[in-house]
Amino acid sequence: VTADLPVRLRDLVGPAGVVTAPDQQASYLVDWRGAYRGRAAAVVRPGSTAEVAAVLRLCAAEGIAVVPQGGNTGLCGGSVPDGSGTQVVLSTDRLRAIRGVDRANRTMTVEAGVVLADAQAAARDAGLLFPLSLGSEGSATIGGNVATNAGGTAVLRYGTMRALTLGLEVVLPDGRIWPGLRGLRKDNTGYDLTGLFVGSEGTLGVVTAAVLRLFPAIRRRATAWVGLPDVAAAVALIDLLQDRVGDRLSAFELMSRESVRTVLDHVPGTRDPLPGQHAWFALVELGDTAAGEPLDDVLAATLDDALDADLVSDAVLATSPAQAAALWRLREGVSEAQNAEGPSLKHDVTVPISCLPEFVVRTGAALADALPGVRLVTYGHVGDGNLHYNLGPPRGSDGGELVARADELSAIVYDSVASFAGSISAEHGLGRAKAAAAARSLDPVELDLMRRLKAALDPAGLMNPGAVLADGQGRSG
Amino acid sequence: VTADLPVRLRDLVGPAGVVTAPDQQASYLVDWRGAYRGRAAAVVRPGSTAEVAAVLRLCAAEGIAVVPQGGNTGLCGGSVPDGSGTQVVLSTDRLRAIRGVDRANRTMTVEAGVVLADAQAAARDAGLLFPLSLGSEGSATIGGNVATNAGGTAVLRYGTMRALTLGLEVVLPDGRIWPGLRGLRKDNTGYDLTGLFVGSEGTLGVVTAAVLRLFPAIRRRATAWVGLPDVAAAVALIDLLQDRVGDRLSAFELMSRESVRTVLDHVPGTRDPLPGQHAWFALVELGDTAAGEPLDDVLAATLDDALDADLVSDAVLATSPAQAAALWRLREGVSEAQNAEGPSLKHDVTVPISCLPEFVVRTGAALADALPGVRLVTYGHVGDGNLHYNLGPPRGSDGGELVARADELSAIVYDSVASFAGSISAEHGLGRAKAAAAARSLDPVELDLMRRLKAALDPAGLMNPGAVLADGQGRSG
Repeated sequence: VTADLPVRLRDLVGPAGVVTAPDQQASYLVDWRGAYRGRAAAVVRPGSTAEVAAVLRLCAAEGIAVVPQGGNTGLCGGSVPDGSGTQVVLSTDRLRAIRGVDRANRTMTVEAGVVLADAQAAARDAGLLFPLSLGSEGSATIGGNVATNAGGTAVLRYGTMRALTLGLEVVLPDGRIWPGLRGLRKDNTGYDLTGLFVGSEGTLGVVTAAVLRLFPAIRRRATAWVGLPDVAAAVALIDLLQDRVGDRLSAFELMSRESVRTVLDHVPGTRDPLPGQHAWFALVELGDTAAGEPLDDVLAATLDDALDADLVSDAVLATSPAQAAALWRLREGVSEAQNAEGPSLKHDVTVPISCLPEFVVRTGAALADALPGVRLVTYGHVGDGNLHYNLGPPRGSDGGELVARADELSAIVYDSVASFAGSISAEHGLGRAKAAAAARSLDPVELDLMRRLKAALDPAGLMNPGAVLADGQGRSG
Repeated sequence: VTADLPVRLRDLVGPAGVVTAPDQQASYLVDWRGAYRGRAAAVVRPGSTAEVAAVLRLCAAEGIAVVPQGGNTGLCGGSVPDGSGTQVVLSTDRLRAIRGVDRANRTMTVEAGVVLADAQAAARDAGLLFPLSLGSEGSATIGGNVATNAGGTAVLRYGTMRALTLGLEVVLPDGRIWPGLRGLRKDNTGYDLTGLFVGSEGTLGVVTAAVLRLFPAIRRRATAWVGLPDVAAAVALIDLLQDRVGDRLSAFELMSRESVRTVLDHVPGTRDPLPGQHAWFALVELGDTAAGEPLDDVLAATLDDALDADLVSDAVLATSPAQAAALWRLREGVSEAQNAEGPSLKHDVTVPISCLPEFVVRTGAALADALPGVRLVTYGHVGDGNLHYNLGPPRGSDGGELVARADELSAIVYDSVASFAGSISAEHGLGRAKAAAAARSLDPVELDLMRRLKAALDPAGLMNPGAVLADGQGRSG
C-alpha cells in the first residue's frame, strides 16, 4: 500500500467519499459490540455502483484487500478490517437510494446501503410488506442482510434473505459489474448466481443493489404467550398450529425460563404475563392479510386443544396491540438483559426441528457436567430449528471460568450440533469469528468446493480475506 | 472410449446396471417427445451412491463424458447424449429409495430416481404435502426436478424446486461424494452449494439424493373459472386475490381464448364452462389447511367485487371435486391439444408480472406483422410472470412456413423478453435446446461467471457437455 492511496481514491470517489481523520474513521474500524477492532489503509464510501467498480479496479491493480461494510451490526466480525492497516474498508453508507417499487410485481429495487427499517417503510408506503425482521433493523443494511443471508423472526413464514432476494447487482473483485437486477419469480437460464452471492459475506464481490420480494400487508394479528413443560411440547405445538392455521403462523419464538428471568430482572417495565412456574415459554403470533379473519378465536381454540393435550401448561392472549408489544419486548430484550448480567458465551445453531428436544436435553447435561451450575439462556426461532444457545456463568461466579474455558464449552455445543447433523451458524454467518470452527466441522469435500468457488470468483483472494474461509484461500495449486 | 468399457462398468455396478442391448438402450437415447436422439458408449444404471461414484471415477480417469438422466421428460434435450457414441448415459432409475420422512421436521429424504408422483404420495401418507406439481409428474424424477429447478402450477404459493430443497447428496465429476443431506431451514456455514447444484442440469455433478421440504396438507379447496377482458385485468385480479386471501391463493393459471379453443376442439370430454365470448380465462384455486374455512364464500365474494370493478367478465365456481377436475383438464390439456394441431413453436418465458400486459400486446403485434394470421396459444403461470408463449400456424396453413421461419419468429419473442428484462427460460431450463440462445442473450459478465463456476467444479468439462453452456466450456485460459 502506497502513501498516496487516499489521494488516488479521492480522485475516484470525490472528497466526501474518503474518510481519513482518525476520529471519523473510528466507527468503521470496530463492530457495534466492540468485539472486533482493526486498522485500515483507507475508508472509502463510494456514491454509486460505478464508483464501487472504480475502487475495486484500483484495489485489484494494486493488490489491496477490500473489506465491504454495511451497517456494521454483524455478530461475527465479518465487516471489520484486520489489524495490519493494509486493507481498505468499503462502506456502502452512501448507496441509499430506493430505486423503485413495482407494486404489481411485488418487488422493490434498493441499494445496498439502505437501512432495513427504511426498506420496510418503503414497502409499507406502497401498501405491501417486506417481512425481514431483526433486532438490528434500525442500523443493519440491505447489503449486509444479503451478504449474511439474514434470518430473524419472520423466517418461519417468509424464509431467509436468500428467499426474499430475486436479483442482485454485484461489483466483482476485478471491478466488472454483474447486472443481475432481475425481478423474476422464475428464471432458469443458468446457474443460481444470486443465491451464491447471498450469504457469501463480501468474499466474492460487493453487492450494490438488490431486487427484493414484497408480500401482501398483514392486516390482522393474534398474539399469545404460552407456558410449556418442555421442548418436545413446543415442537408438537408448532405442528398443531401449522396444521390448523397453515401459513398464518407468523412467529413461534421459544424461550427458556432462565431467558425470561434474565429479561424480567434487567429490562425496565417488563412483567411476567403468566402466574405460576413454567419451564419454557413460547411467543406465538398469527397474521392474516384479510382484516376480517377471527384470528383470536382460532388461536384461542387451538391453545385450548393444546391445553387438553397437555402440550401447554398455561396461555394468555394479547387483547390489544400494546399487550402484544409487551410480549414481544420479553423476547427482544434477551440480548440486552444478557449483556447486563456480564460475560456470556453465545452460539447460534440449528438442528432438525425433530431433534430439538433431545439436543436441548443432551447438550444441557454435558455442559452441566463440564461446568456445574452453568446457566443456559436458550431461546430462538424454534420453528426454524434455530436456537440461540447462550451460556452464562454459574450464579455467584464472575464469569472468569466461563471465559477461560470458552473453547472447551463451545466445543461441547458444536460436537452436540454435529451429532444431530446441525449447523454451527444458523443465521449469523461465519465472519472471522466462526470461520476456523467451520473449517474444522465441515466435511472436507464441502470445504474444497467452497475453496474452488472462492478461487473461481476471487482468484487473487482480495475480497474480505479471513471471512468464511479462515485462511482467505481459494483452492491451492 | 475403449471397447471394454461396458465390461469395466459391469465390474462396478453389476450386470443389472449396464444396458447394452440396442432395443433396451433405445428409451435412454431419445427424449419423450422424440425431439432429441443420440448414441451412447454405454448406458449405466448404478444401484447406489457408491456405484455412481465408482462410475464417475472411471469416466474421469478415462476422459469420458457423462450425461445424467432422470425420467427423461425434459423439454430442452438436457438428458440425451449427443450423436458421437462416445458419451455414457448415467440413469438414476435404480436410485428409488425414500430414505425417510421426518414428520416433525417436515422433511423427507429421497433418492434421485424417485418419481415425483411417488414422492408426493410418500408425503401424503405421512399426512403432509410435497407441493411440486407438473404435467409429467408420473414419470419425472426428483433428480431431474432438482437438476432443472422444476416449476409447475404450485410455484405461486410454494416456490420452485430450489425453494423446496434443503440439502443434497451429489457425486462430483471426480467421483468424490458431497454429503450435503442436511434438513435445516437455516444454515449459514458458507456458500450455498445446494442452491448452486439445483438448476445446474447435471453439468456440475450427479445429484443422488435430496432433502425436501414438506408442508401441512391442504384440506379445503375452492376452484373457479373466470373470463377476463385482457391480461391487465388478470394482473389486477391476482393483486386483489392476494390482498384478500394471502397465501391461500394456490394457483392462478391464465389461458388465451385460442388456448381454450384448442383444448375444446381436441381433448375429448371437455366443454366450455362459461357462456359467451371472453378474450382470456383464468383458473383460480384457493387452498387451506383448515378444513372448516368457508373458502367458496371468500372466493365468490372476491370475484363479485372483481365483476363490479370490471376486472372479470364472468365467473363460475366448481361445486364438486369432479367439477374442479374438469376445470383443471382444460388447463392441463393444452400441450396434448396443441400437438394434435400440428407443428408449433414453443417458448417458456418470464417477465415481471407488471409487464405482462404490455409484453403480450407488443409481442403479439410484432408476430402478427411478421406472419399474418399466426395463432398465439398463450397460457401459463401468470402469478409467477411465466407464460408458455406458443405459436401455431395461421389457419389453413400446414405449418411449413412457421417451422421454416422458427429462428426468426423466436428471435422476435426473445427480443421482446429482453426489452422487459425477462428470461427466455422460466422453468424448463436450457438443456441443449436453449444454451446457444442463452449465450447470446445473457450479459457477458454473467456468462463469464457461469464459465468460471463450471471450470471450478468440472475442470475437465465431462459433465453433460453442451447443456447450459453451449460449448461445454468452463473458463478458457
